[in-house]
Amino acid sequence: MSDLRNQALEYAHQNSAAYLQSLQSLVQIPSISTSVDHKKAIKETAEWLADRLRKIGFKNVALYPTAGHPVVFGEYIIDRPGRKTVLIYGHYDVQPVEPLEQWKTNPFEATVVGDNLFGRGASDMKGQIMASMDAVEAVIHAGEPPVNIKFMIEGEEEIGSPNLGPFLKEKAKLLAADVVLNPDSGMLAADFPTLTYALRGLAYFELRVYGPEHDLHSGLFGGAVHNPAQALAELIAGMHDADGRVTLPGYYDSVREMKPAEREDMARLPLNDDFYKAQTGAPELCGEKGYTAAERIGARPTLEVNGLLSGFTGQGSKTVIPAWAMAKISMRLVPDQDPEEVYHQFIEYLKLKAPPTIRWEVIRMSGGPASFTDPNHPAARAMSQAMETVWGKRPVFRREGGSIPIVSDMQETLGIESVLTGFGLPEDNVHAPNEKLHLPTWYRGIDSLILFFYNYGAQE
Amino acid sequence: MSDLRNQALEYAHQNSAAYLQSLQSLVQIPSISTSVDHKKAIKETAEWLADRLRKIGFKNVALYPTAGHPVVFGEYIIDRPGRKTVLIYGHYDVQPVEPLEQWKTNPFEATVVGDNLFGRGASDMKGQIMASMDAVEAVIHAGEPPVNIKFMIEGEEEIGSPNLGPFLKEKAKLLAADVVLNPDSGMLAADFPTLTYALRGLAYFELRVYGPEHDLHSGLFGGAVHNPAQALAELIAGMHDADGRVTLPGYYDSVREMKPAEREDMARLPLNDDFYKAQTGAPELCGEKGYTAAERIGARPTLEVNGLLSGFTGQGSKTVIPAWAMAKISMRLVPDQDPEEVYHQFIEYLKLKAPPTIRWEVIRMSGGPASFTDPNHPAARAMSQAMETVWGKRPVFRREGGSIPIVSDMQETLGIESVLTGFGLPEDNVHAPNEKLHLPTWYRGIDSLILFFYNYGAQE
Repeated sequence: MSDLRNQALEYAHQNSAAYLQSLQSLVQIPSISTSVDHKKAIKETAEWLADRLRKIGFKNVALYPTAGHPVVFGEYIIDRPGRKTVLIYGHYDVQPVEPLEQWKTNPFEATVVGDNLFGRGASDMKGQIMASMDAVEAVIHAGEPPVNIKFMIEGEEEIGSPNLGPFLKEKAKLLAADVVLNPDSGMLAADFPTLTYALRGLAYFELRVYGPEHDLHSGLFGGAVHNPAQALAELIAGMHDADGRVTLPGYYDSVREMKPAEREDMARLPLNDDFYKAQTGAPELCGEKGYTAAERIGARPTLEVNGLLSGFTGQGSKTVIPAWAMAKISMRLVPDQDPEEVYHQFIEYLKLKAPPTIRWEVIRMSGGPASFTDPNHPAARAMSQAMETVWGKRPVFRREGGSIPIVSDMQETLGIESVLTGFGLPEDNVHAPNEKLHLPTWYRGIDSLILFFYNYGAQE
Repeated sequence: MSDLRNQALEYAHQNSAAYLQSLQSLVQIPSISTSVDHKKAIKETAEWLADRLRKIGFKNVALYPTAGHPVVFGEYIIDRPGRKTVLIYGHYDVQPVEPLEQWKTNPFEATVVGDNLFGRGASDMKGQIMASMDAVEAVIHAGEPPVNIKFMIEGEEEIGSPNLGPFLKEKAKLLAADVVLNPDSGMLAADFPTLTYALRGLAYFELRVYGPEHDLHSGLFGGAVHNPAQALAELIAGMHDADGRVTLPGYYDSVREMKPAEREDMARLPLNDDFYKAQTGAPELCGEKGYTAAERIGARPTLEVNGLLSGFTGQGSKTVIPAWAMAKISMRLVPDQDPEEVYHQFIEYLKLKAPPTIRWEVIRMSGGPASFTDPNHPAARAMSQAMETVWGKRPVFRREGGSIPIVSDMQETLGIESVLTGFGLPEDNVHAPNEKLHLPTWYRGIDSLILFFYNYGAQE
């Protein structure tokens, strides 16, 4: 086994340039899932991945259609009793690129600058998909893989995976596995290999406020009606109290409080306020009173305004009272908040607070509960060992602020635990201009995934 | 004189179809002054107007360049002692047309539907300019005009006339006149001829709030920083108190209160709350406590949000903490508020209320003080008589909520009073989609302007 392992590592090292080129080709396809203009790119990306799986020897490779974008599936199975199966999850879709003028390189050119590969999706998560495929290719090249491997790569994660739930239910047999390897969560820093054991959930809404029937001249009518942009601002302002707590009725009722030991563990992570100030560049940090920034991100629910639009927003001035105003508003949820309940809390808040001078409407968008995984799962231990070998230090176990709804879906629908890892860094600008991937860390990630397969396969 | 008058009226009636066609041609040129893409249309419009003035016999017709868009000037002078001179003011620029999808006709096609001409600028104020030119054409055709006439038509009213002040100072001699006829204020209703004696001023700003250095992933960082869109909403929400009063420090200190008699006069106008509900289509009216809607619009200062922009505003969802947020905010001012003082009150408010968790910036845009004119000026009486002849009832004298900075500029720089009138209606959707002009009222307007020249010329 040690021989195969070294051969696989050597193969990966020899092919590092080809691996990078291959990743660049993938990043160059603009698979923005939220955009109706990018359907062709979405399909092209899915086909590109299926081709790659076929080339490294996967069977039953197929694009499974959904009501939205297709799921790429493939498997490498040696049908012998006792062999474990790892299902590798990924998403090939990416976030939009606006504001485009803030990008220093073309987001779909996949430009290497120094140690980094710049491009939309380089870190989130085409780099992570390719690290997994590259590791698998090396393992297969070395000989018989130590575990069976399946890939399931969806195309709708960035829009909340609206069609993945039904797919999991339908394809339960096809997807059967001992564990899910999910490389969509990142690392604390380049020298802190990281395993994530808790993720936040999400409830995403669009709130629309309507006032006059059409835009009005602010001179001829200013003073007569409630300006919808002002009314929206008033509603948003009321969603937090002076202590930074969310004011939706009952919002904290089912929030699982951190145990003192967990808070102590978190305090030991290299995630102090200076770290977050440097990461964000904000003038000062801000949030719920009584918690550190790391706790607020990892273990506390939040409410964010993701977008605002009303009236005249071009250059210059227009003296208009807008007919309507819109906000994209989302909540990050923690165990044991229920996205359905949070929706009702949001509606309840609006019923209580919205004045009779305006009309309002809520459009439900994506959502999913928070998730907790077992940090002592055999596969988690195998990954932890692998990382320790590559980095020379034990990985950090942490709670993360992002949402990966597939983790709880896998638990609930298929009864499969996930190992949450990945090789993105906090400074990768994911979902933002100038997204990038740190290549030295990415190569270490490929090595650690190779070792993970052997470690996990060797476990009794 | 009565002969000339009847000949002029007859000429106007015979040419009503040509007058309409001519107005349509003018509306068809998209002279949006705030848009850098429409410079050619601006120039074309100015030249169109200059041509028309030359055709009806005006002399010294010229486009005067400014730092922005040119001013069209022309004069029809008979150099004989004792003749009065009327300077007719107009603006040939128009507001932007967004949201375009809400227009039922192309805004620059100038479409007649029933009694109305639809198109951007039809009412504000190309229709008013053409009513004036058409009346002048008829008067000149009939014989020697009873007064000297000058036209000064600017191209930057909709962006706050930034270059008109210097122009007035430079060209004081050219513009010398006994009175300004300003047809840029409208009528209460088609059967209520109206003379306006007070206008509100304007102070227009763009407020930008900056948070993190770049957009952040709301999962990875939500809870760490003050969301700039939320911070902006909080600042906006604080700009009014529970009584609908503006909270900028000192905002009401120099506001001239209405006298009881004036409030009684206003209460008699056909401008009750039902009127404003019907005009706006808002679910309920709203504004400063203790005043009727008509008073709030005509005689009280306001603060309006004219636009909001932050983060992701497209279709679908993007889980982003925006790096910045922007609001266009303007105040309508009344006598004796000073736009410069109001700017400092706005800054003072932000200094007091903006938290250290964000940075902010204010960009000053257009502004000007409120104005008051003398309702007993001889020219106002001449116009009042003319309207009474055409409509068969005495016109209403009213305060208006809009801003026409040229009125106070004319008073202060040139010492000339203005007669404020016009033939636009409240339901004309000025500054909004589906702007239109009520043609029967417009034709009555032409007649009343013809009579105005004769009435004013005949006065001792």
